[in-house]
Amino acid sequence: MSPETAPGPQVPPSTGAPALDEARTVLERCDVLAAVSSSDTGITRVYLSPEHARVNEMAGRWMEQAGMTTWRDAAGNQRGRYEGAEPGAPALLLGSHLDTVPDAGRYDGILGVLLAIAVVERLNAEGVRLPFAVEVLAFGDEEGTRFGTALLGSRAVAGTWDDAWWQLADAEGVSLRDAFVAFGLDPEAVGEAAPPRDSVVGYLEAHIEQGPYLEEADRALAVVSSIAGARRFELTMTGVAGHAGGVPFHRRHDALAGASEVVLAVERLARDAGCIATVGRLEAFPGGVNVIPGLVEFSLDLRAEHDDRRDEVWAAIQAAAAETAATRGLIFEAHETHSAPAVVASRHLAEVVRDGIVATGDADPMTLFSKAGHDAMAVAELTDWAMLFVRCGNGGISHHPDEIVTEGDVAVALDAFDAAVRALAARHAGADA
Amino acid sequence: MSPETAPGPQVPPSTGAPALDEARTVLERCDVLAAVSSSDTGITRVYLSPEHARVNEMAGRWMEQAGMTTWRDAAGNQRGRYEGAEPGAPALLLGSHLDTVPDAGRYDGILGVLLAIAVVERLNAEGVRLPFAVEVLAFGDEEGTRFGTALLGSRAVAGTWDDAWWQLADAEGVSLRDAFVAFGLDPEAVGEAAPPRDSVVGYLEAHIEQGPYLEEADRALAVVSSIAGARRFELTMTGVAGHAGGVPFHRRHDALAGASEVVLAVERLARDAGCIATVGRLEAFPGGVNVIPGLVEFSLDLRAEHDDRRDEVWAAIQAAAAETAATRGLIFEAHETHSAPAVVASRHLAEVVRDGIVATGDADPMTLFSKAGHDAMAVAELTDWAMLFVRCGNGGISHHPDEIVTEGDVAVALDAFDAAVRALAARHAGADA
Repeated sequence: MSPETAPGPQVPPSTGAPALDEARTVLERCDVLAAVSSSDTGITRVYLSPEHARVNEMAGRWMEQAGMTTWRDAAGNQRGRYEGAEPGAPALLLGSHLDTVPDAGRYDGILGVLLAIAVVERLNAEGVRLPFAVEVLAFGDEEGTRFGTALLGSRAVAGTWDDAWWQLADAEGVSLRDAFVAFGLDPEAVGEAAPPRDSVVGYLEAHIEQGPYLEEADRALAVVSSIAGARRFELTMTGVAGHAGGVPFHRRHDALAGASEVVLAVERLARDAGCIATVGRLEAFPGGVNVIPGLVEFSLDLRAEHDDRRDEVWAAIQAAAAETAATRGLIFEAHETHSAPAVVASRHLAEVVRDGIVATGDADPMTLFSKAGHDAMAVAELTDWAMLFVRCGNGGISHHPDEIVTEGDVAVALDAFDAAVRALAARHAGADA
Repeated sequence: MSPETAPGPQVPPSTGAPALDEARTVLERCDVLAAVSSSDTGITRVYLSPEHARVNEMAGRWMEQAGMTTWRDAAGNQRGRYEGAEPGAPALLLGSHLDTVPDAGRYDGILGVLLAIAVVERLNAEGVRLPFAVEVLAFGDEEGTRFGTALLGSRAVAGTWDDAWWQLADAEGVSLRDAFVAFGLDPEAVGEAAPPRDSVVGYLEAHIEQGPYLEEADRALAVVSSIAGARRFELTMTGVAGHAGGVPFHRRHDALAGASEVVLAVERLARDAGCIATVGRLEAFPGGVNVIPGLVEFSLDLRAEHDDRRDEVWAAIQAAAAETAATRGLIFEAHETHSAPAVVASRHLAEVVRDGIVATGDADPMTLFSKAGHDAMAVAELTDWAMLFVRCGNGGISHHPDEIVTEGDVAVALDAFDAAVRALAARHAGADA
């Protein structure tokens, strides 16, 4: 970047004044998008659906109003670009997703997209051009609701698309390939969704916390330090079924009693280690009222800020389950169905997010690690990243219609997100100066 | 009974010599009946089915060969009568059932019917007439496999038929009333299956133990002291579902963790009290791998020799579950679906069963309470009763194709059952003398 075009100190700080009006607009847009659903009774919006096309169109219109050129990329993501001081400069990516889980809330993902658009709208209104372009990405698939595999939109952008996914099928048996074609996309061109690495400055994402920590700490915002890596397992405990009347306790090999010990060990070991673990699914077989269970099938979802801590807990759970199995004459087996490493935010981008929060008056911003997955996990393969968490109420409930944020928090989040972008611009200018 | 017809001391003891041959015949008959099944892959024979009609016919033929007059009673049970010294005298009832659970073993119920026939065959071969008639009852429904409600055959004989049962329907929607008619029975006449009380002397039943105690004690036979009264409950533990990543442990109300504590409390409290308790069914909802369970539905089957002990354990389980619920912020609820009191064997008939076992050379017979239900529970409403248990192998496995008895045990069971009948006859003769 030449000194001539470096805006450097010329980048003005946000005025902050109209933030509440802008927040109201953001929340009204969340409501408008919430009406686009394949279900009459809640919000459900999946990848490559008619609802996906409609929200792309709406988001694209708002992008244009914010001064961006827009396009639908080769994976169906809606994108907009606001040029920097020098046209064609590398871009800072701001994004999140527009798809939902079934019967979703209206802020998970959506708020991040609309905050990104609002930041650009502000820059555009002020006529500010940064030392980099700003691109807003509205990803079409983060939740994986339709095809089971998550982050399809952001993985396309990261250039980590896997051709094996073309065979994925939805509940109606439609393959991902056919869904691409039906959406007007060319499967052969999906690679074009990924920008060259040197055309990208980094990736910032704002997102609701989906947890209670900000609410408990009475704070609006946090910097995300990392995204927990999850491991998932299908577990089985096998014993011997038998007549409830005929088999005394000392001769039983009750798979459910054994599995119950494992459920409680999972809770105890994970909590003691500061990890998150959940047995979400459990069923006893054959399931007769008067039959001792001979088999239990159950699941385990294990998350931690650090992979080694998580893996230590898994080892401890396995040891506890093996001991239960040995004591009770049962067989414990585990099959890993999913594994993703924890992803640590890029230090310099986490610092600008922190600077953004400080600019809103919070001198010592809170740092949280994300227990949920985000598009940033996928984009991490392409470029540096950081995230801003926004408080959600009701104990942090998410993936649920009760998901909620306040207008005040959205206003301060917009100021912080905007300030972070300008802080990065200042650093770029400073580096160039 | 006049002194002229009282056989009194004339009743000869069994010779015992051909017991192994007779046992072989009993086991061959078990095999023959096992071939009568509605399933190609196992033994399944339900009330008022074509298979029921076929085994009735077979059992009726063996009854006739043993010198009995035979008939199918008003509830479809196959019956045979061997007159005593005085025709028309009150009858000692010997019985068990010919119906099965799905994929059953070949001895549960069946062995008792065939041992009863073998006892009469022996009396008939020796030309012995007792001071009472002997009637063999092959009940058509003990298991309740077809209509859900058990003991229909024996309850008809006990005179405790409930007209509400006519509306019971099988899996194909056929009502019990229609099944009666299709089997050639008159629903209006079902009361005729119950004999007048003064025409009955008592009821004896031989049955496999369906448990491991005889095998563990290395004994062939036991006297049954009582039949456990079972109580059954549908239980629910209600918490709050939530995102596995988003809700930390201290904010969770995990219904599955709570239910797991209850499963283990059930086991501990029942074992400590010498009762039998089984959680046979358990399922967590909504059942997502990454969703904290908000609801668990599970079942409890509780049995004990004494009702008060069983009810104490239920109170302790409820207290433990309530404490778990309070600690975890959950709601525990229980709904009783079945309750039957324990039934104690008649002392004088248990003594003759004991005398019968002593006659086979076991000077100090073992006493067991039955954890499983039997036809004797129903017949107890009509007359005095006692039961003889026969060892079954493979750890006492039952309701399973691996159910097994040995020829030697069947031989000694036949001798004991026969000796018990003769001991009762001797008492009658003694009382009359």
